[in-house]
Amino acid sequence: MTQSRDAFEARLRQIGAERYHDLHPFHDMLHGGGCSPDQLRAWVINRYYYQQAIPMKDAAFMSRVSDPDLRRKWRSRIEDHDGTETNEGGIRRWLRLAEAVGLDSDYVASTEGVLPATRFAVDAYLRFVRDKSLLEAVAASLTELFAPKIHANRIAGLLQNYDFADDYALSYFRNRLREAPKDVAFGLEWVLVHADTAEKQDMAAAALIFKTDVLWAQLDALWGAYVAPGRIPPGAWQPDTGLLLAQKAS
Amino acid sequence: MTQSRDAFEARLRQIGAERYHDLHPFHDMLHGGGCSPDQLRAWVINRYYYQQAIPMKDAAFMSRVSDPDLRRKWRSRIEDHDGTETNEGGIRRWLRLAEAVGLDSDYVASTEGVLPATRFAVDAYLRFVRDKSLLEAVAASLTELFAPKIHANRIAGLLQNYDFADDYALSYFRNRLREAPKDVAFGLEWVLVHADTAEKQDMAAAALIFKTDVLWAQLDALWGAYVAPGRIPPGAWQPDTGLLLAQKAS
Repeated sequence: MTQSRDAFEARLRQIGAERYHDLHPFHDMLHGGGCSPDQLRAWVINRYYYQQAIPMKDAAFMSRVSDPDLRRKWRSRIEDHDGTETNEGGIRRWLRLAEAVGLDSDYVASTEGVLPATRFAVDAYLRFVRDKSLLEAVAASLTELFAPKIHANRIAGLLQNYDFADDYALSYFRNRLREAPKDVAFGLEWVLVHADTAEKQDMAAAALIFKTDVLWAQLDALWGAYVAPGRIPPGAWQPDTGLLLAQKAS
Repeated sequence: MTQSRDAFEARLRQIGAERYHDLHPFHDMLHGGGCSPDQLRAWVINRYYYQQAIPMKDAAFMSRVSDPDLRRKWRSRIEDHDGTETNEGGIRRWLRLAEAVGLDSDYVASTEGVLPATRFAVDAYLRFVRDKSLLEAVAASLTELFAPKIHANRIAGLLQNYDFADDYALSYFRNRLREAPKDVAFGLEWVLVHADTAEKQDMAAAALIFKTDVLWAQLDALWGAYVAPGRIPPGAWQPDTGLLLAQKAS
């Protein structure tokens, strides 16, 4: 039976309450000051792969949208990440974070050393948006509903617990606090309007669950490789590589 | 054997000289004042389908580009067509042309009545960009090398030969005269640099030929359906439908 708008929205939010990656123990460790410098670096390296794929995902979405109005509304997501003439963009801000934790930003941007499991999860998201319905693609983006809390916690936790952390290094998260709400308000409304049958509501909910899996799997991979007793898979980043020269000398 | 940069560029330009759709007899008829109002409308309706697909094509390209710099450079193509806060964009300008020739712009934007052969050709271009190499996708865009001449001829020919034509109606073409050169200069340079083996040069040349076929096939379809003795296929636009109310009354 088709759920009411309010019941369906509550169902989507409940997915976040149960499955969003703020519940993953890596985030407690990260925000609580428990990460070693190398664990921080491993997180920054792997999370970069997700960041750099987001504009490709949004372009894949736009490539399937025949309504110019919807394309225009969606385009700002690409601008937020890739940057504009007046906004350096989230990808460059993430590379600033990389330098702040002692990584060579060119090494990070090369995406060498990213865990294969991270690639598989992120690439699965890109393929999902390419192949599934527009409704499922928009629903998958709704993990942004749950992001402001984790970003606020992260800014506070990193500032409190790590020497590298300052407003400059953390500007990525502050900007997302500003940008994400407008995107997610639009996306949530779109899903609530377009998921107008029980079948479509189920598809949208499944898409959001899929996306929480994409995020969670990245942290599981990070945990397995870099948190004791970590086992780094062949070819993935090894501590002491890809560092800034200053960091190597110190 | 790999061609020199100059020889390869000359080869690409020769493809335009032999195969670009400025050579199609429909364009002589259009620019020379030989089109009836219904033939003009059929052209506007069908060409709209190509116009509206171009940002989807460019988004498909961007969805496959992992270099943020290249994505940033490419993004202006989407902005030129879909519009920005300060630029209404090519799609809206094309709809203005539609109204100028007496068509209901909502009808045109619905893409109902587009010839199936037009859809097949345009959709083939979208799939080409989705599936082929980035080099082939950029090479296919190089028909813009040959566009300024046809746009200049078109502006002059339409202004001289048709009552509907004025600067307002033809603003699409004037804007393309300004926008296309920067895009094509970047694209040409990219292809000349990246087609660095004989095999890649052949691929790039074949991609440009493919694109000239996409454009030519649209005019052949238009000619077959709407130029005497035209045979309009089932479901395609019939003269006297999709008109502005004012036009119907007159």
